[in-house]
Amino acid sequence: MSRGICVYLEFLTPAHKAQIEKAAQETGFSVHFFDLDQFEEARACLQHCEVLYAHDLALLKAAPPSLRWYCCSFAGVDIYCKAPSVFANPQCLLTNSSGYGVTIAEHVVMVTLMLLRRMPEYEAVVCQHSWSRQLSIRSIRDNEFTILGTGNIGTNVAQRLRGMGAARITGLSRSGRPAADFDRVLPISRLDEVLPETKILVMALPSTPETENILSRQRIALLPPEAYVINVGRGTALDQDALTEALNSHQLAGAALDVMVPEPLPPDHPLWNARNLILTPHVSGNMTLGYTCDVNVDMFCRDLANYAAGRPLVNLVDRTLGY
Amino acid sequence: MSRGICVYLEFLTPAHKAQIEKAAQETGFSVHFFDLDQFEEARACLQHCEVLYAHDLALLKAAPPSLRWYCCSFAGVDIYCKAPSVFANPQCLLTNSSGYGVTIAEHVVMVTLMLLRRMPEYEAVVCQHSWSRQLSIRSIRDNEFTILGTGNIGTNVAQRLRGMGAARITGLSRSGRPAADFDRVLPISRLDEVLPETKILVMALPSTPETENILSRQRIALLPPEAYVINVGRGTALDQDALTEALNSHQLAGAALDVMVPEPLPPDHPLWNARNLILTPHVSGNMTLGYTCDVNVDMFCRDLANYAAGRPLVNLVDRTLGY
Repeated sequence: MSRGICVYLEFLTPAHKAQIEKAAQETGFSVHFFDLDQFEEARACLQHCEVLYAHDLALLKAAPPSLRWYCCSFAGVDIYCKAPSVFANPQCLLTNSSGYGVTIAEHVVMVTLMLLRRMPEYEAVVCQHSWSRQLSIRSIRDNEFTILGTGNIGTNVAQRLRGMGAARITGLSRSGRPAADFDRVLPISRLDEVLPETKILVMALPSTPETENILSRQRIALLPPEAYVINVGRGTALDQDALTEALNSHQLAGAALDVMVPEPLPPDHPLWNARNLILTPHVSGNMTLGYTCDVNVDMFCRDLANYAAGRPLVNLVDRTLGY
Repeated sequence: MSRGICVYLEFLTPAHKAQIEKAAQETGFSVHFFDLDQFEEARACLQHCEVLYAHDLALLKAAPPSLRWYCCSFAGVDIYCKAPSVFANPQCLLTNSSGYGVTIAEHVVMVTLMLLRRMPEYEAVVCQHSWSRQLSIRSIRDNEFTILGTGNIGTNVAQRLRGMGAARITGLSRSGRPAADFDRVLPISRLDEVLPETKILVMALPSTPETENILSRQRIALLPPEAYVINVGRGTALDQDALTEALNSHQLAGAALDVMVPEPLPPDHPLWNARNLILTPHVSGNMTLGYTCDVNVDMFCRDLANYAAGRPLVNLVDRTLGY
């Protein structure tokens, strides 16, 4: 029988499926599609497949040792790295899908402007059907940004801020290697020195042991009182209690969190009522944007060709690093 | 006695005043500053001045025939053009201040993203402390924009949309003259032909007899149902009743109005409750942004040098055209 690919995803259009079919045919694979309500069928099929394209921990755990490549359609793959035992085959390749940069960057620009232009407060005014215009606002132009993470997301954010005239964009990454669209990139070990001069802090980090609680209570205290914090990476990257206290006591000007701990946030969680906090239910990188889905499928098909030809996979994840 | 300048403004910092003092000194003028609570003092002083830098119709009406230049600190000067009798001196020069492009463009980018990313709906979810992630969103990237007005505001909007990957940006202006950052500029007479293929319509027009009700009920009906309308020009440019009906009946996807008729909007006005409408209380070009104030003062000082030297004023308004 031919080599099999099991696809278990919710966002594929007929055009996406045709594109995957074609890529499979060209590389000698047969492909089997399942919707999210067909878990049992997908599991049965997976027993005879060597490739899985999905984002499901339970399904991966049910895979046989003959699974050789798991393509996760999400960017964040920390849950697959923390527990190596999820792979029956220890040599199984793991790739992630890093094409969320455009949609997450648009989210970051949106919430940055909402914070700088005092939208939460103006929305409260409008909600009362009243009229008030005197809140002092700030601008992306001439402002100073620090972006934690210089990957696909951080780079897309930096490009957009640059295009809107940001005065200085500092990137922080593990390596500190220079990157286009950043005025400077520093190693993340220099974070403490950058925080006091940060006006807007954008956090776009994967969840790894190193990034957990990286914006600790002590570091939140290093930010100036006019600073805004925006997190689109993982909720574990910051101390939520300390952030809530800093907001409520005016030690920080405001924040926008698209990721938090836990998700969904329980209805009585104090974060819901923190002062000047824009909360969104983990939608910044949502697969509800067609373009993001297109890129996701493109990346899978490109790496399928690489896989079939024995070339290295572009989106290969180092499971010990977690990204 | 020396030639006098009367300045009656609320937004000047000590640095701005020093800058104006210096420009006045260099050109042989003496300058007199008044806060908005000093109307009577300003009026008395104005009787001996040839230049007024303000945004106040009542004060202008109290000016003597010897007033030779009124520099309005606002961009919209329609109220001074509709009634020529406000100028005791029919030859009095009128300039406006067109430096609002940056702040208004940032407002436009913000509300565009809020509409495309369904923020009014997500905010309603968050307000209930609940969790829902399935709303389909759209992106500035690959989208098609029509901008009414290719002046300072329209150009700043186009630059930012271009930087975020907009697929096509059509400008419409009186002349239809090509302009940087627009894919094409058409004469405003071709509006009807452009509306059916418009995804996001940005209105940044001055208030003139020609622009009044330019987005009429008939033209609103030409927009596709997925279209968004954003107005940062003047409230009179669109048919508010027709817009409200189109929103409530899902003939239009949404809108964002920063200008409306009347302002302030009365507490019982139907616009407050229109479906998927982002209302802001005329703050897109607010003087609460320091940069906008800096540009305003720079422009006045530059034109003061022109005025003193007998050169043409850069921001001169044609009172018959209204801009």
